[in-house]
Amino acid sequence: MKGISILGSTGSVGTNVLRTVDAFPGRFRVVGLAAGKNVERLAEQVALYRPRVVSVASDGALEALGRLVDLSGCRVFVGEAGMVEVATDSEAAIVVASAVGAIGLVPTYRALQAGKDVALANKETLVMAGALMMAEARARGARVLPIDSEHCALHQCLDGRRPEEVRRLVLTASGGPFRNRPKDTFDKITREEALNHPTWSMGRKITIDSSTLMNKGLEVIEAHWLFGVEESRIEVLIHPQSVVHSMVEFVDGTVLAQLGVTDMRMPIQYALSHPERWPAAIPGMDFTRAMRLDFDIPDHARFPCLGLAYRAIRSGGTLPAVLNAANEEAVAAFLDDRIPFAAIPDTIAQVMEAHSPTAVRELSDVLEADGWARAHAARSLRAGGVAARVPS
Amino acid sequence: MKGISILGSTGSVGTNVLRTVDAFPGRFRVVGLAAGKNVERLAEQVALYRPRVVSVASDGALEALGRLVDLSGCRVFVGEAGMVEVATDSEAAIVVASAVGAIGLVPTYRALQAGKDVALANKETLVMAGALMMAEARARGARVLPIDSEHCALHQCLDGRRPEEVRRLVLTASGGPFRNRPKDTFDKITREEALNHPTWSMGRKITIDSSTLMNKGLEVIEAHWLFGVEESRIEVLIHPQSVVHSMVEFVDGTVLAQLGVTDMRMPIQYALSHPERWPAAIPGMDFTRAMRLDFDIPDHARFPCLGLAYRAIRSGGTLPAVLNAANEEAVAAFLDDRIPFAAIPDTIAQVMEAHSPTAVRELSDVLEADGWARAHAARSLRAGGVAARVPS
Repeated sequence: MKGISILGSTGSVGTNVLRTVDAFPGRFRVVGLAAGKNVERLAEQVALYRPRVVSVASDGALEALGRLVDLSGCRVFVGEAGMVEVATDSEAAIVVASAVGAIGLVPTYRALQAGKDVALANKETLVMAGALMMAEARARGARVLPIDSEHCALHQCLDGRRPEEVRRLVLTASGGPFRNRPKDTFDKITREEALNHPTWSMGRKITIDSSTLMNKGLEVIEAHWLFGVEESRIEVLIHPQSVVHSMVEFVDGTVLAQLGVTDMRMPIQYALSHPERWPAAIPGMDFTRAMRLDFDIPDHARFPCLGLAYRAIRSGGTLPAVLNAANEEAVAAFLDDRIPFAAIPDTIAQVMEAHSPTAVRELSDVLEADGWARAHAARSLRAGGVAARVPS
Repeated sequence: MKGISILGSTGSVGTNVLRTVDAFPGRFRVVGLAAGKNVERLAEQVALYRPRVVSVASDGALEALGRLVDLSGCRVFVGEAGMVEVATDSEAAIVVASAVGAIGLVPTYRALQAGKDVALANKETLVMAGALMMAEARARGARVLPIDSEHCALHQCLDGRRPEEVRRLVLTASGGPFRNRPKDTFDKITREEALNHPTWSMGRKITIDSSTLMNKGLEVIEAHWLFGVEESRIEVLIHPQSVVHSMVEFVDGTVLAQLGVTDMRMPIQYALSHPERWPAAIPGMDFTRAMRLDFDIPDHARFPCLGLAYRAIRSGGTLPAVLNAANEEAVAAFLDDRIPFAAIPDTIAQVMEAHSPTAVRELSDVLEADGWARAHAARSLRAGGVAARVPS
């Protein structure tokens, strides 16, 4: 049995990882679980899987957890240091990095340093520090296995083919809830509308990222690092049905695409079973009914976040980390009703403009840029420079 | 440089093979060319490539060829024996089997016996004698590389994956020119209508096969032998745009599809370059324009040939060879205006009903069944049993 640790075990990816573990008895032993504040769900998981090591966001959360479940026999930790303990436990062969946002960076990096395979759902870590992460993986012989549906699709289409054989990577995007919404009504978009994703059920932050297409922008950067293909050869296509999860065009002009149902257990299972394929516990595609698939080019005018992401990876250095941090702050502000929807890209653009990118030599360079961007974004959001546009 | 022989060099596949050879100077040397009666085109090819060995259909054709081009330094032959000489020339490492119909069977089989890799465009040979061909290839360590667009797609999607990992093969079909034609007008279909294929430009026999969906039925049988997947796990989907060339669903529920332009140089190049991929001389897909892909299930009532093919491979033995021979005779009769369109499946069904399938142990079993079926079909066509339905 392969030891598995999960960073972000109570989130949508984490719970589906555990459903996949359950679907294949005898394949995995859950050795570590790290969660944030959802101690109720974590308590259930601890009772069921009896992991060796557990971590939560804070001392308060740990206390609450201890009231809900017997923690004897568990090593318990809090905060980032706790996540690192979960990520580097000696019995973990594979670490699922599914904590959302920049918080996953250091633990995921430490997992790679410890030579663990990483099943990566946290795209922010690669956006922030892709060069460092991939270099570490190569140096330690660790694999980075994407769980993101789109990157899992690319991973399957490439199946070991070298970057030199690739003409283009084509990431598909559902287009989110505002695909057909006229630009002049974007200032009226409510939080509830933005949280209502047409095809995927995910956490709040990624759902907002999908509605701005920043999610796709982050995926462009992620694909660049995972597959060693420069951003000028990575394209985005709007595909509202979300049946084609992504495509690879090879130098001979042929295109391979991966299709499937929109169930995140599929990419999770692929990452956990790779290079094997196991018979799935979930239903496949229904070919007995007529199916229509549409593809269109994205509208950069209505979705400027996509262009910002391309700009960040083209510049390189610390700029992608700044993009990511500014986005996290702007999305949080939107979710708190502090800024309108259209102010999300404005905030990010403003922070990026103010930043002088430097080279990334070590993790501290990234963390410093991340901190700078958050502080700058917070000041800018407080100052109301963009907040002034909240609909009156 | 790799020596290449082409059976059917003047047909649509053969000429595109030579265009591909031209596009990659230094990769291939044309050592053998076999053609039928198109001596004008063959003379041009002989003058350009100076092959070691040449074959044509008959002594008359050879004489005509000799008047058009200097044949000194060429070994020249006629008929099936000549095709075998071309297929087994000692300097040929790869043989392109693109003669149409049963005539390609013996030469292709001999090429495999001689340990040559075979790039296969002639699906009839696998339909007739798939078990023998694949056994011979395995025994001699020869590869059978499909050139058929659909099988090239499956080949690319599988890329070495074992049959145990496959849940279903899904062959796409354009649906041909009569996809939306009402059944009660099928008896009015003219030869010109049937020869007008919506997406592919091919020879006459295969174009008629596409209009009856027999082409797809033959491809089901071909896929069965090429990839070792039983017919119950091979499905056909109507896909009018012909952009998705075929798909594989794996046991984990994931689907890989191969997409591309409808240019037969693409599967030809893939077969000739495999396992490498070479930068193509032809343009790829245009992702800058909106694209719509539709999929639907085939209508067996209007296209009974598809069901006949499934029935033939399910029964096995000599029945697929009989299906193929009866089809060739019926299509020839339709092209000669001797029978109406709707009589094609009727003729095949009649011949199949009259046949008592036996096991296939050697090539002579196949050839005998083929001969019997042609004779039976010819009698039945002469007797007017089905011809009586020609529109009056």
